[in-house]
Amino acid sequence: MVFPKTNKELDLIAKYFAPLSLSSKGALGLHDDAALMEVPSGYEAVVTNDILVEGIHFLANDPPETIAWKSLAVNLSDLASMGAKPTSYTLGFAIPSYVEHEWIKLYVSGLEEVQNNYKIALIGGDTVSTKGPITLSITAFGHVPKNTAILRSGASAGEEIYVTGSIGGGYLGLRYLQDNLIQVNGQLSSLFVQMYRKPVPRVGLGIALRGLATSATDISDGLIADLGNICRESDVSANIQAWDIPVPEGVDKLIEKNCITLQDIFSGGDDYELLFTVPPGSKSKVRDLACIYDLNISQIGITSLGPANISFYNKNHSIIEFDSIGYSHF
Amino acid sequence: MVFPKTNKELDLIAKYFAPLSLSSKGALGLHDDAALMEVPSGYEAVVTNDILVEGIHFLANDPPETIAWKSLAVNLSDLASMGAKPTSYTLGFAIPSYVEHEWIKLYVSGLEEVQNNYKIALIGGDTVSTKGPITLSITAFGHVPKNTAILRSGASAGEEIYVTGSIGGGYLGLRYLQDNLIQVNGQLSSLFVQMYRKPVPRVGLGIALRGLATSATDISDGLIADLGNICRESDVSANIQAWDIPVPEGVDKLIEKNCITLQDIFSGGDDYELLFTVPPGSKSKVRDLACIYDLNISQIGITSLGPANISFYNKNHSIIEFDSIGYSHF
Repeated sequence: MVFPKTNKELDLIAKYFAPLSLSSKGALGLHDDAALMEVPSGYEAVVTNDILVEGIHFLANDPPETIAWKSLAVNLSDLASMGAKPTSYTLGFAIPSYVEHEWIKLYVSGLEEVQNNYKIALIGGDTVSTKGPITLSITAFGHVPKNTAILRSGASAGEEIYVTGSIGGGYLGLRYLQDNLIQVNGQLSSLFVQMYRKPVPRVGLGIALRGLATSATDISDGLIADLGNICRESDVSANIQAWDIPVPEGVDKLIEKNCITLQDIFSGGDDYELLFTVPPGSKSKVRDLACIYDLNISQIGITSLGPANISFYNKNHSIIEFDSIGYSHF
Repeated sequence: MVFPKTNKELDLIAKYFAPLSLSSKGALGLHDDAALMEVPSGYEAVVTNDILVEGIHFLANDPPETIAWKSLAVNLSDLASMGAKPTSYTLGFAIPSYVEHEWIKLYVSGLEEVQNNYKIALIGGDTVSTKGPITLSITAFGHVPKNTAILRSGASAGEEIYVTGSIGGGYLGLRYLQDNLIQVNGQLSSLFVQMYRKPVPRVGLGIALRGLATSATDISDGLIADLGNICRESDVSANIQAWDIPVPEGVDKLIEKNCITLQDIFSGGDDYELLFTVPPGSKSKVRDLACIYDLNISQIGITSLGPANISFYNKNHSIIEFDSIGYSHF
């Protein structure tokens, strides 16, 4: 007679991951081969996948809670940029054998924090060992009423371009943690590190932008690269007032001291802010949303006819020459 | 002026992965932050995720085409075990920098083969670099009419237990490739290797089992472990006639020569056959399905009242003592 005992993977799932699935009936307690996901009638599902690799997308000594936050938040940010309401996610969890249960426990507590904030549930996944770095593959799900998803391809010439929050904090946090160049006071450095480790997906605003924004994306690879994606997909050019791009406090001084360049800030990545276009005459609507969501939303430029070029203008209307194309995680 | 050029990740996506998405409108050409997925009215989506790590779930020198086949097929096998019709998938693709385009091209050709066989499309994913082993995270999607998914938890006492195909070929293929113990003739070894590298997900049969099977799972971690999952989730015991379990040709001789044991075969993993229960009196229905899908389907035992024990019986009705709990990929 065989008593089918649980193995190490089942133990991990039962102890740490199954509790994250309790609010989803379709997760089947993570006990089955797959999960069930209902999409309300009249809606379509929205699906996104991001892999985060230790040493590339997060640092080995980042706290497990913030690694968890980031691994889930970057996916919710993708859903937000489509105008989707997030509902659930699967977690592919590849960890080396030296990772201790305490690390997993803290990682799970980070997932729990995001789940509670955005009312989502874990519905499935896979837990495997690897001889390589910790590798986290999250596929996140949301939904939108049919034909209301905000695409990168919907912008036209003559529209206003906006960004949420500020640009560059995540990049500066990474530079600070890597201990090269950035010298700032303790309070600022904590803020930058927080921006790098715990980006806030603009979920509420993303949903509110349905029907208003003509195109949207989240800024993950840097403002220039992600604006480039909208320009290419929509076949528009972008004319950007560089000094209207909101940057965190302290950036001026770092530029003055030649620690960083403005181009670094615009191509640095890890912002996870929303970048979107609206038809001309939408200023007051955008201002209302900024109030409702208690969020800075700044107009940074306008679109013009394609091809997909981006021009950055100085205060004196002269063009600023950049050549970078944005940070690549690859 | 900035010309937003494509970066290495975008190049890879455009060249190799975007063509795999063409049959899905919701994939948006892999050009957006997320994909759209319609679920037909009256259906629910079925979602599964498997991560495959080089050196653990496939061997470094396995052909890229078969690695692709396996990475996708094991996910389709999970969907099949739920009775779901597969529709699409996302691919998280973490590769070390030494992986050449030729490898990626062959990997993509393997995905294409599976796509063509099962009429599914790539709808999204993420391509990143890693300093570790090749890591492939696939999340696959399908759908079932609401409330028709076949769960692990639906079996009752007194039902018939069936498996498709044969058990142990995948395990023997792995043992052969690892070059330890298995000595078989060339033709048999090719067959075992094929079973290890290119398991066939029982998609058509899985769909046909809706409304007939009371429970189902696919055999990925070994017959004993996966049967154990059904027993535990359904709170039934399983009484198995060991000699009714179909094994590939040549296994008898390997057991006689003490190369392997019967227990190795039943706990070896990598079968990706379906294991399911049906109410008593369903034999002719199962036989019909075997004809329709041109597939061996063998009754291997019956369920009885829980707790979740598995008893293996010899031809002379004596109990065979095993203690293994199945292969764990963890």
